[in-house]
Amino acid sequence: MSQKVWEDLYSEVGTNLTPSPIRELVKYMKKPGMISLAGGNPDPEIFPVKEFQEAAGVISERGKEILQYGGTGGYEPLKDFISQWMAPRMGRVTSPGEMCITTGSQQVMDLFAAVMLDPGDVVVVEEPTYPGATHALKNRKARFITVPCDSEGMKVELLPEILEQARKGRDRVKFIYSIVNFQNPSGYTLSLPRRKKLLEIAESFGTPVFEDDPYGHLRFDGEHEPTIFSMDRSGLVIYACSFSKILAPGTRVAWVTGPEDVISKMVMVKQGSDLCTSVLAQGLVYEYCRLGHMDSFLPRIQEHYKKKRDAMDAAFREFLPSTTTYETPSGGFFYWLALPGVNTRDLFFKAIDRNVSFVTGDSFFPTGGGEEYLRACFSYANADDFPEAAKRLALAINDLGQ
Amino acid sequence: MSQKVWEDLYSEVGTNLTPSPIRELVKYMKKPGMISLAGGNPDPEIFPVKEFQEAAGVISERGKEILQYGGTGGYEPLKDFISQWMAPRMGRVTSPGEMCITTGSQQVMDLFAAVMLDPGDVVVVEEPTYPGATHALKNRKARFITVPCDSEGMKVELLPEILEQARKGRDRVKFIYSIVNFQNPSGYTLSLPRRKKLLEIAESFGTPVFEDDPYGHLRFDGEHEPTIFSMDRSGLVIYACSFSKILAPGTRVAWVTGPEDVISKMVMVKQGSDLCTSVLAQGLVYEYCRLGHMDSFLPRIQEHYKKKRDAMDAAFREFLPSTTTYETPSGGFFYWLALPGVNTRDLFFKAIDRNVSFVTGDSFFPTGGGEEYLRACFSYANADDFPEAAKRLALAINDLGQ
Repeated sequence: MSQKVWEDLYSEVGTNLTPSPIRELVKYMKKPGMISLAGGNPDPEIFPVKEFQEAAGVISERGKEILQYGGTGGYEPLKDFISQWMAPRMGRVTSPGEMCITTGSQQVMDLFAAVMLDPGDVVVVEEPTYPGATHALKNRKARFITVPCDSEGMKVELLPEILEQARKGRDRVKFIYSIVNFQNPSGYTLSLPRRKKLLEIAESFGTPVFEDDPYGHLRFDGEHEPTIFSMDRSGLVIYACSFSKILAPGTRVAWVTGPEDVISKMVMVKQGSDLCTSVLAQGLVYEYCRLGHMDSFLPRIQEHYKKKRDAMDAAFREFLPSTTTYETPSGGFFYWLALPGVNTRDLFFKAIDRNVSFVTGDSFFPTGGGEEYLRACFSYANADDFPEAAKRLALAINDLGQ
Repeated sequence: MSQKVWEDLYSEVGTNLTPSPIRELVKYMKKPGMISLAGGNPDPEIFPVKEFQEAAGVISERGKEILQYGGTGGYEPLKDFISQWMAPRMGRVTSPGEMCITTGSQQVMDLFAAVMLDPGDVVVVEEPTYPGATHALKNRKARFITVPCDSEGMKVELLPEILEQARKGRDRVKFIYSIVNFQNPSGYTLSLPRRKKLLEIAESFGTPVFEDDPYGHLRFDGEHEPTIFSMDRSGLVIYACSFSKILAPGTRVAWVTGPEDVISKMVMVKQGSDLCTSVLAQGLVYEYCRLGHMDSFLPRIQEHYKKKRDAMDAAFREFLPSTTTYETPSGGFFYWLALPGVNTRDLFFKAIDRNVSFVTGDSFFPTGGGEEYLRACFSYANADDFPEAAKRLALAINDLGQ
């Protein structure tokens, strides 16, 4: 009886939920002998376990504080640390009212969506884009307009026409979402001229920009591009970053920086969402930073992931067919492979048979398409396995052709 | 310029946000010399800091696991512990698919609201009820129908007429929300006959029940009432509980148990909300439980809070005017005072002048009313201060009469 009762009562959002495409792949990743290039997890071999254990001493020192409820906006000592530490990237020391600590940067999108989106409102996203972001947006019944990317990131020169058309069609475009560095899934970085252009367009249309930057600190080659936030003079940019990729994702500690009025609204939504992010986790992350481990760890992981990137690059060059093309990413976790004429959904099952996995391109195209692409992640699997993984992938491509 | 741009873009939810009434009081609580009976925080003096520090050793042992992303439904060893530990209350060992670990039980309501509520849908709540719950519901544009309470909790005998009227008025009632033990703010416990009656009504109307139970383990006198979940044969009850009051709220670790289909939908929403609850926090809570500290700590806090309850009871009996009436709660954190003829909003400012604070009754009435009530919390303030607090409250009542 009860199943039917519930089904009649679920909301529209509840009725139309679908599992995350990436999370669905986890079952295949656990097959024995599988080399997984699928999940975008950091490498647990490089987690700073010893340093984090040391930081846990803060429980004895500040237990009464970090075991208690905390302010919804975040643990103040951690906020202060972040605003100082991020000042070179943000262009200035931001104030406490401009920042909210969140339960992973996934929550930034969730809160921002609640503050911004009525059902049917439009968000402009990159094509491809991160499905976790579109999942949060779908939970608020967003619609999407996509902008294609090339190796310099979002083709922002297409934006004025897109925004103009939306305006004519009475689509309410609420913001533009960009993952600016070593994008998930493409690995592309938005170039400086495009950052400037994006900001100009945002100002001229009065359309805010959500600058998502979980991978920005993981640059292996070249110089950092300035954040869009640091160039913004109009208060139209919110910027999200996280400890997930530069310390450890199990902490679930991230943050968002933006105009005080927007942040205060996100804080009010957060009061209803989870009251505050784990103060315990924030306290340990703060202590880890205070002890100087963040600054000493960062070069180590940059070096570690650079080596893995190089190993994947060499393996792909040696074993993949020349028809498979890609850009070598300058940072982050991901390769984005174009396989003209290959449907990567079909390829996926051949690859699973060959004990190698990836994420199919269509997972990253919220309005359809992407079948001839796949995402291969170099952060998680063992680099020694990359040649074998590339061989298996080449064999799977071959299997499909037969 | 930007302020105006943003204001034009905020969603209906974003536009109508108001700060939590209780969180707004925090500024007054920090006044020097203030005795705060306002915030419902646990007593940090009794936090198991030493035991929790010991549990943090799990970082060295399981660091690669608990610093990584975790399953959205929760950390499996912790889920297993909870389902075993809760079996006597739940009536059986629940399965992993029936449980989701959440970022505080605040998140249970947030996720459940997303799964259940379209804008304008109705939730039946107790009057008075917890404003954190109605805040999460308002974030999904819920409307409320309230059911008055007496010392046996929600007057469930009024429900059939209420649900019938709603049906006639085409109000879509999605569920009934009850805080079943030592309710926040009233301290009332839903009696066994009413639990049974509530379940009957839920079944006959096909209306689910959200049984919220953050205080259930904190019983000082008498015997536990069986949970509604344990009596449910129709799969219409979801049950929420938390480590916030029985261990420490700064962990932000809670859980919800319910029918698998509902839980799986809440897990899918959670993927878009925060991916997973801090695995670090879950790992430490699990280790704390595994080491046996949960079972040894619980009698200690029951004893601790019972003493504070007794101290507040004595102080109120000695100093409050006889026109102020209340029930002595058998557990939990709260006294609910009725002050006929007194507007507690006016009283609040007199009380602040006298250096004592509380939460005004209207904060707990989502559809208006409650002006002649106030909530006084005995968990947080020092029990030695209760006589002085009661004296000051009596003086403030007197001030108001002049």
